[in-house]
Amino acid sequence: MAKDKKLVEGITSMDVDFAQWYTDVVKKAELCDYTSVKGCMVIKPAGYAIWENIQNELDRRFKETGVENVYLPMLIPESLLQKEKDHVEGFAPEVAWVTHGGLEPLQERMCVRPTSETLFCDFYQKEVHSYRDLPKVYNQWCSVLRWEKTTRPFLRSREFLWQEGHTVHATEEEAEARTQQMLNVYADFCEQVLAIPVIKGRKTDKEKFAGAIATYTIEALMHDGKALQSGTSHNFGDGFAKAFGIQFTDKDNQLKYVHQTSWGVTTRLIGAIIMVHGDDSGLVLPPRIAPVQTMIVPVAQHKEGVLDKAYELRDKLSRQFKVKVDDSEKSPGWKFAEQEIKGIPTRIEIGPKDIEANQAVIVRRDTREKIVVSLDEIETKLGEILETMQHDMLEKARAHRDSHTYDATTYEEFVETINNKPGFVRAMWCGDQACEDKIKEDTTATSRCMPFEQHQLSGTCVCCGKPAKKMVYWGKAY
Amino acid sequence: MAKDKKLVEGITSMDVDFAQWYTDVVKKAELCDYTSVKGCMVIKPAGYAIWENIQNELDRRFKETGVENVYLPMLIPESLLQKEKDHVEGFAPEVAWVTHGGLEPLQERMCVRPTSETLFCDFYQKEVHSYRDLPKVYNQWCSVLRWEKTTRPFLRSREFLWQEGHTVHATEEEAEARTQQMLNVYADFCEQVLAIPVIKGRKTDKEKFAGAIATYTIEALMHDGKALQSGTSHNFGDGFAKAFGIQFTDKDNQLKYVHQTSWGVTTRLIGAIIMVHGDDSGLVLPPRIAPVQTMIVPVAQHKEGVLDKAYELRDKLSRQFKVKVDDSEKSPGWKFAEQEIKGIPTRIEIGPKDIEANQAVIVRRDTREKIVVSLDEIETKLGEILETMQHDMLEKARAHRDSHTYDATTYEEFVETINNKPGFVRAMWCGDQACEDKIKEDTTATSRCMPFEQHQLSGTCVCCGKPAKKMVYWGKAY
Repeated sequence: MAKDKKLVEGITSMDVDFAQWYTDVVKKAELCDYTSVKGCMVIKPAGYAIWENIQNELDRRFKETGVENVYLPMLIPESLLQKEKDHVEGFAPEVAWVTHGGLEPLQERMCVRPTSETLFCDFYQKEVHSYRDLPKVYNQWCSVLRWEKTTRPFLRSREFLWQEGHTVHATEEEAEARTQQMLNVYADFCEQVLAIPVIKGRKTDKEKFAGAIATYTIEALMHDGKALQSGTSHNFGDGFAKAFGIQFTDKDNQLKYVHQTSWGVTTRLIGAIIMVHGDDSGLVLPPRIAPVQTMIVPVAQHKEGVLDKAYELRDKLSRQFKVKVDDSEKSPGWKFAEQEIKGIPTRIEIGPKDIEANQAVIVRRDTREKIVVSLDEIETKLGEILETMQHDMLEKARAHRDSHTYDATTYEEFVETINNKPGFVRAMWCGDQACEDKIKEDTTATSRCMPFEQHQLSGTCVCCGKPAKKMVYWGKAY
Repeated sequence: MAKDKKLVEGITSMDVDFAQWYTDVVKKAELCDYTSVKGCMVIKPAGYAIWENIQNELDRRFKETGVENVYLPMLIPESLLQKEKDHVEGFAPEVAWVTHGGLEPLQERMCVRPTSETLFCDFYQKEVHSYRDLPKVYNQWCSVLRWEKTTRPFLRSREFLWQEGHTVHATEEEAEARTQQMLNVYADFCEQVLAIPVIKGRKTDKEKFAGAIATYTIEALMHDGKALQSGTSHNFGDGFAKAFGIQFTDKDNQLKYVHQTSWGVTTRLIGAIIMVHGDDSGLVLPPRIAPVQTMIVPVAQHKEGVLDKAYELRDKLSRQFKVKVDDSEKSPGWKFAEQEIKGIPTRIEIGPKDIEANQAVIVRRDTREKIVVSLDEIETKLGEILETMQHDMLEKARAHRDSHTYDATTYEEFVETINNKPGFVRAMWCGDQACEDKIKEDTTATSRCMPFEQHQLSGTCVCCGKPAKKMVYWGKAY
């Protein structure tokens, strides 16, 4: 049965205009929408359900590593924001200021949190006295506000949802270990659950977080060859501790500064799912993150027994899977198109002839493969199909990323590649920010990260020719 | 073994000073703390874990009734807030205003949401066109800001966490049914999970929500005899729909206004748990909401085999219960006191003699009853004890409430009772706001609700003597 043309025609082909395709998918899949509040989105049920699954899965993984959740205020007094020099320089230009409470002007204005390092420091300063109080491994799920000039659904909006972990440790080593541990949690989550392969690495000083001594990142490649920073983990050393006076008495009875980390991922991950897995028919959700894993579509549902069989199937499959029946008055073709637009991983078509033959047809969203299965073994088969699909989606994304990753050893080759071949370009770098600046000016590309997995592509910096220090992933980024 | 005196001495006796007792428990149980942001709290791990359990349990119950979660912006443009007259009058005096974004003044100032009716209306105005789009039953979990002058942890703070449900319906009847349905969800949750009995009823016009035609409430009685409004559900009729132009084409092809509801509970519920169940040793958590249901305290843990047995017991019990082992270096007495302060429903004491006798001692937090159980049947026994405790806590709270609920038929009796006997006073009312005003002025008590379960205590208003319309619960309230 043909998909309904009208529905699909609402989505621009991704090869024609990727940005428009993205906006169309966000809209058609009913993930989010614009509001009367400029630069802020409403996240609709289909979008929020994905975020809830991200939260549940990540939160479980966090807690397995000893993370505890807390909640700190959404407002930051200006004097608190200003305590750490680099941090305030990084964030002051993009915060929103509250100046009046009720009918009165405030004595000191406060910003809506763009991130909560300063609040956590203020809190830890009061909480931490002895080595017995350490470590503290806290996280909060909340929204933050950054006054961005240009915005795009999920990728960049003035308000977004995220989690921010903030930890304090007795030693430098422990802080560094936690920073890397959380990066690994993010990387595993992206690969295993979102089916998005990521490059793990360290940001250059130019690209690191305001106030951090080291920022680690996971970088993903979108279908259009642009990079998306998908999660970051920062080691602050004792910089914030010194600015906020967070000291503890160690076992040796010496007063010492703590070492701190922070790490976060945002609703931007939903944008990554769309841009890594989506196609011209709409969203494609990896089974492990999909709010609905299979949509049962009864065919000729007015015929006796068809709907009953569909409900029976739903009840049976619900024990193991997230299942819905589309029993609306729409035509099967329309329902197929809707299931595809919304990215539901599989649909199960079942009509009178299927029932007679004690079978149903499972259709994979990603490959559109149709698999006829006996109703006697449909639970097992559906489980296998979803697992295969999850695996195939990761491998497809990995293959796409790998086939769009290029090496360059001369500047000419570098510029030529980065401007004409969408994807990552790997090239050696001398460590000098001037080269990053020049590359950005010449090509708009930025250093995405110095990957943990290094290769010696050549001995010299691709930009200035001086001796190279690190291999860097470069790319044009969201 | 005696409880450690120092720890418990930090808590003022509730009979001596209930307000100080409350503050001490909040602090000692490490639920929340003050911050540098005036009127805003930090919710610490022990407090936030209770909120997470409230969220999980309520969210499941919401979804069973068809609720879907969404997320709307935290900022409301001033013009949007002003669209519904009663609503803006109710909230404008207590909102915080954002006037600058980044380095620029805003063209129109925006408030941080004190509640999101106006944003939901703006959203629904765009989303709802036909009867086919109805109903929409959305909810969001978020924080809100109200510029309160006096604040108390959990009970009243400038920022608090809550959920706000907002629904649109085709008919008046459907909106009214949803309003009452959600009130029942709240009431069942409070009784079954929090072990807090509530009075369900309707607010008088004086006490109803700004913009509602009817506000329903659940009212609970705290240990000190003061009332706590614990959840509300509002029927807006078509007032907001008319102000925001939310219309739909009905089946009969007529353009009609929608009918709306909203309903919410907040972190205030944590305050209710403390003030209903707590005692002079600290918090007492009902087993169904407790983040940790049993704390295993090894006695003489340095002796061979004791800690191993404690861990073995934890692993066994973890399959069914939320269990921790306190294997710190503190003395057993100190650990007992900590478990009591934190309100962990049970502790399991196990030492060398117990192990020899193949037994352990389960101690209930509420009654301090010590129950010796065989290790062979400890899973079953612990389950029974927790269920009994949950049941007993509800019945104890109900008995306390009932024994602190008085009837008054003359004004003298009313004033005498409400001023001298902490608790609810039930009395008849003529329906005139002037009587509510007079009662408040004379006694500081307010009408808590007109309960669904009415009794004809007398024929005349307790205040003015005119014919009575309703029996009202009156009380001094938080």
